[in-house]
Amino acid sequence: MCKTCDYTIHGAQHHFGWDNSIAPAETVAPGSTILFKCHDSSAGQLGPSSTVADVAALDFGKINPVSGPILIDGAEPGDALKITLQDFMPRVEGGTAWGWTANIPGFGLLADQFTEPALNIWTYDAESLEPAMWGSTGKVALKPFTGTIGVAPAEPGLHSVVPPRRVGGNLDIRDIAKGTVLYLPVEVAGALFSVGDTHAAQGDGEVCGTAIESPMDVVLTLDLVKGANLKMPRFTTPGPVTRHLDAKGYEVTTGIGPDLMSGARDAVAGMVDLLTATHGMSAVEAYMLVSTCGDLRISEIVDQPNWVVSFYFPRSVFE
Amino acid sequence: MCKTCDYTIHGAQHHFGWDNSIAPAETVAPGSTILFKCHDSSAGQLGPSSTVADVAALDFGKINPVSGPILIDGAEPGDALKITLQDFMPRVEGGTAWGWTANIPGFGLLADQFTEPALNIWTYDAESLEPAMWGSTGKVALKPFTGTIGVAPAEPGLHSVVPPRRVGGNLDIRDIAKGTVLYLPVEVAGALFSVGDTHAAQGDGEVCGTAIESPMDVVLTLDLVKGANLKMPRFTTPGPVTRHLDAKGYEVTTGIGPDLMSGARDAVAGMVDLLTATHGMSAVEAYMLVSTCGDLRISEIVDQPNWVVSFYFPRSVFE
Repeated sequence: MCKTCDYTIHGAQHHFGWDNSIAPAETVAPGSTILFKCHDSSAGQLGPSSTVADVAALDFGKINPVSGPILIDGAEPGDALKITLQDFMPRVEGGTAWGWTANIPGFGLLADQFTEPALNIWTYDAESLEPAMWGSTGKVALKPFTGTIGVAPAEPGLHSVVPPRRVGGNLDIRDIAKGTVLYLPVEVAGALFSVGDTHAAQGDGEVCGTAIESPMDVVLTLDLVKGANLKMPRFTTPGPVTRHLDAKGYEVTTGIGPDLMSGARDAVAGMVDLLTATHGMSAVEAYMLVSTCGDLRISEIVDQPNWVVSFYFPRSVFE
Repeated sequence: MCKTCDYTIHGAQHHFGWDNSIAPAETVAPGSTILFKCHDSSAGQLGPSSTVADVAALDFGKINPVSGPILIDGAEPGDALKITLQDFMPRVEGGTAWGWTANIPGFGLLADQFTEPALNIWTYDAESLEPAMWGSTGKVALKPFTGTIGVAPAEPGLHSVVPPRRVGGNLDIRDIAKGTVLYLPVEVAGALFSVGDTHAAQGDGEVCGTAIESPMDVVLTLDLVKGANLKMPRFTTPGPVTRHLDAKGYEVTTGIGPDLMSGARDAVAGMVDLLTATHGMSAVEAYMLVSTCGDLRISEIVDQPNWVVSFYFPRSVFE
């Protein structure tokens, strides 16, 4: 339980997609702290004992439920919603916290190369957050965060939850974690805030399309910055963002050329090749593993006509 | 001096552009350690007392001289050249190490928005490498590295030094720093290795087009991995890559949409706006500052059709 919370949003209080006509689950004053009991991104279609057959059978109409919406008293278009991420508490089921990472056909940076479903189920300690084991030798450092966090867009109608937008949504930014302060542009009266898609770990890019997808409780505080007129989301982190995984340095592959997307694909494919050659795993295993801990960075974006995208895999996983 | 070096390549032994017909400055055995006396990327056109007028007068035919080429005995197409970066020693002139950062019209991620030349001259301590001062309040953490490092391409003729290629070149990867081991695909017999364009600090992206451009001595060891058949450059870092600047966390701006380049531009423009609003500097000053320390990351590249590019500015600069 959350002793400092003003409200609790239960699992049943969720919605699929963004629509500013959805009735608020709660109306709160600025400054309120709220506990959200978030589902995993499969909305419970996958569980600790799921198999790859369950990935093939996923109903995409029930992907990425978000908890809410919360109407914030006094929020108006042009304001910024200030969200302070207070805490993430992974759900314990059968004595352990758990998560899933899948290759979902048709989804992911290298979807053309990985056409068959695949699944990895992780277990980890919700209290210690010690690294989760990958097979018998790999260790992936954990840092819980929320993949989907946003407010309702001004444009009427139902909008898919999959793409992120100016108002946030499925941002999948690894550093929207404990202590981070996120600012989102408000487009409708009351803002209509929702959150979900909690992840135990993810690399920058979320390259296979999924992270370590875990149901969690999230505690956050909502406040307003009047008349902020933000163009895009921005955030402040309270400290370093990669120290949970950077202690041993990185293996880095690159993609070089005139298109950033091609560069990113080349860099990730290069890392999949490197890990399969050096660590005896299948290509799809490597692809799922690096999605949980490898970081896509733009090393150089000015030396016309070729840009450099680099993919950083933390050596701490295997050292 | 370098007591452990087998060879010294002097400043006069440089060339402009890549061409596999350039005569070697030296022929060395695999395993050799070499000291390169590298010029800054202006080839001395800018110096510690330069002004913005000198930026406007830059001769682009003399940009990015590289020291070399070095013929490595026994190197053949299909091998990888293994380069271990041993040390970087910034050149001391007039009692201090120095560097320059410029906005060069027509060059840089936001060249359409920043059309006038601008220049910042930095000084710093070559021994301690304590952060360099930005005006009276800012501090930019230093981490010397080489921006341009490569081997000759197989394709005959003279190729511009500006774009990086499969064989390396103007990679401008901030983490090709002390201790890093870089692997480059060899395309011609002898490899024909050259290095230059030394930087005292740069953020991922090098967004304004220049870093802290400093002349330096570079010590590195060249070796071969026979038959490696690399597709693209890759490297290994000996430890963390951002701890020199991440202690206070980050301010982060985002760009969200279906094009990574537009996302990167929006994220950087958002940071320029934020710094000008909060730290009383001009837009072009902010643009040059963030080029030396702000990092472009791809937060999400799978949530079709919109990707998220984030620009991380280290709060340690002003805290």
